[in-house]
Amino acid sequence: MSDLETYLEETARQVDIALGRYFGDVFGDLYRAGAHLLLAGGKRLRPAMLLLSADAVRHGSSDNLMTAALALEITHTFTLVHDDIMDGDTTRRGVPTVHTLWDEPTAILAGDVLYAKAFEYITLAAAEDRARVKAVNMLARTCAEICEGQHQDMAFEERGAEVEAGDYIEMAAKKTGALYAASASIGAILAGCGPVEADALYQYGMNAGIAFQIQDDLIDLLAPAEKSGKDRGSDLREGKQTLIAIVARERGVDLSKYRRPLTPEDVDAAIAELEGAGVLDEVRRIAAERVTTARQALQVLPESQERKYLEELVEFFVRRSF
Amino acid sequence: MSDLETYLEETARQVDIALGRYFGDVFGDLYRAGAHLLLAGGKRLRPAMLLLSADAVRHGSSDNLMTAALALEITHTFTLVHDDIMDGDTTRRGVPTVHTLWDEPTAILAGDVLYAKAFEYITLAAAEDRARVKAVNMLARTCAEICEGQHQDMAFEERGAEVEAGDYIEMAAKKTGALYAASASIGAILAGCGPVEADALYQYGMNAGIAFQIQDDLIDLLAPAEKSGKDRGSDLREGKQTLIAIVARERGVDLSKYRRPLTPEDVDAAIAELEGAGVLDEVRRIAAERVTTARQALQVLPESQERKYLEELVEFFVRRSF
Repeated sequence: MSDLETYLEETARQVDIALGRYFGDVFGDLYRAGAHLLLAGGKRLRPAMLLLSADAVRHGSSDNLMTAALALEITHTFTLVHDDIMDGDTTRRGVPTVHTLWDEPTAILAGDVLYAKAFEYITLAAAEDRARVKAVNMLARTCAEICEGQHQDMAFEERGAEVEAGDYIEMAAKKTGALYAASASIGAILAGCGPVEADALYQYGMNAGIAFQIQDDLIDLLAPAEKSGKDRGSDLREGKQTLIAIVARERGVDLSKYRRPLTPEDVDAAIAELEGAGVLDEVRRIAAERVTTARQALQVLPESQERKYLEELVEFFVRRSF
Repeated sequence: MSDLETYLEETARQVDIALGRYFGDVFGDLYRAGAHLLLAGGKRLRPAMLLLSADAVRHGSSDNLMTAALALEITHTFTLVHDDIMDGDTTRRGVPTVHTLWDEPTAILAGDVLYAKAFEYITLAAAEDRARVKAVNMLARTCAEICEGQHQDMAFEERGAEVEAGDYIEMAAKKTGALYAASASIGAILAGCGPVEADALYQYGMNAGIAFQIQDDLIDLLAPAEKSGKDRGSDLREGKQTLIAIVARERGVDLSKYRRPLTPEDVDAAIAELEGAGVLDEVRRIAAERVTTARQALQVLPESQERKYLEELVEFFVRRSF
């Protein structure tokens, strides 16, 4: 295991402990519904990015920022709870979704409670008042962007073959990039950085998040179900407008024949066809470009172990297979 | 028209102008869905309470706090958008509800966007950083309480005859009291008040809000539909656990015979029965007690025109018929 992976594991453990303290023994059905997905595990990459960014601008500052790190994870979880209702998904992180286990009204409210907790926890960060106001403002603008991204993603279904690569990148920037951007930038802001570093880390997180979303699409196609927790090729089956589908269309590969129940052999055939036409290489290239841009943004920071980890983190985003 | 009513009308006009500026010409379906109910009018009582409280602790301070006032109105509206989905309501403020006009996924997201805007706007208040952090923290805790109140209210349906007056007051405190409490207290906090005044205005708003909710129940029963915008006696027909239903049960009045489609004569008969058993007088007495408590809380404030308006405002809460 690399040093980064050890760091990520240790941070996830600390995040899990903190989440357990706040949400492990909650009272009443509503808070249990809110805690359900939050306590179902996860890679806790947004908290890790926030804490690394804080330490990268001022070493040791992450010690005071665990509640802010939780705020980002809680924000992510609230969006998943609401998305699962909208998308009608029944399983997430290996457990039934909130609206499946309870009901839709409870799931809407559980998401809303988590939303509130995210803003409460960010105000609890041990940081300058001015920095906390900026952090709240950034988190709020980010939440609006995530909603826009989810709305665009849903609209892709109707727009179908009209959706172009630029539309996809805009959607991914809002749905996934914005929260990573906020994670990195809020960490730096709460650590007391200036505007140049805050902007640089925002750009870092944004590009890292877009690469992350593209990799998610590749994982859906390529990773065995037991690793990803999803059934392989589900995007293909549902005819989702992923970057893979868009690049395939640009290159004249017709994926519509895969919009049906798929055997593992069907998925393998699709992969072979996409590899043959250079689609997957092109998608990987686009993700790699974002990784490069993300790494370049870090160059305004002084050299440090944490900056090195941030560089490795975005590489990990496109290397992971789950 | 009293001076207070003139003040409320003028404030509502200013709130409407500001909302129109921010939400009147938005781009895209999601923001149009978010703006729909927000621009459909309303009494704008929470912004008025915030601005009056600010001026009651420091005269003239409300001039800088319009964005904070909007934040409270936007918060209220987001809860209505989500509540309408949960309750399956099709009309609100004389217009179709968001999930009726668009669909449920868009309504969930529209509520989520408004939620984000509320927190963004509160950070934009021209106030001390420390005060803004406190305001955000209070708004966040309030949003969680509103969710708890809505969850309790929905649970009342199943609990039926088990629900007691104390349960109702707790629900009303969370669902309605908390946001009025936050309106009054946040106004004072942003105006630079100390903890004694902040607490007093919180208590004022909380008790005013509980009285407001009780009056809402009375209006549902007593006010002609053309005034209230709702069909008269809908709570009775649905067997809702309002304070009226709970006090009726305590006094041995059986309202279950009214759980069916009701003619205006049926509603009149129910009213006569409830008046005869002293139920409505008892409910009015409970609301009046809250009004008295709210007014008493204001006594820590210096005498001023705005304090007088706040006293009159809570009287207006239980006098209004729509």
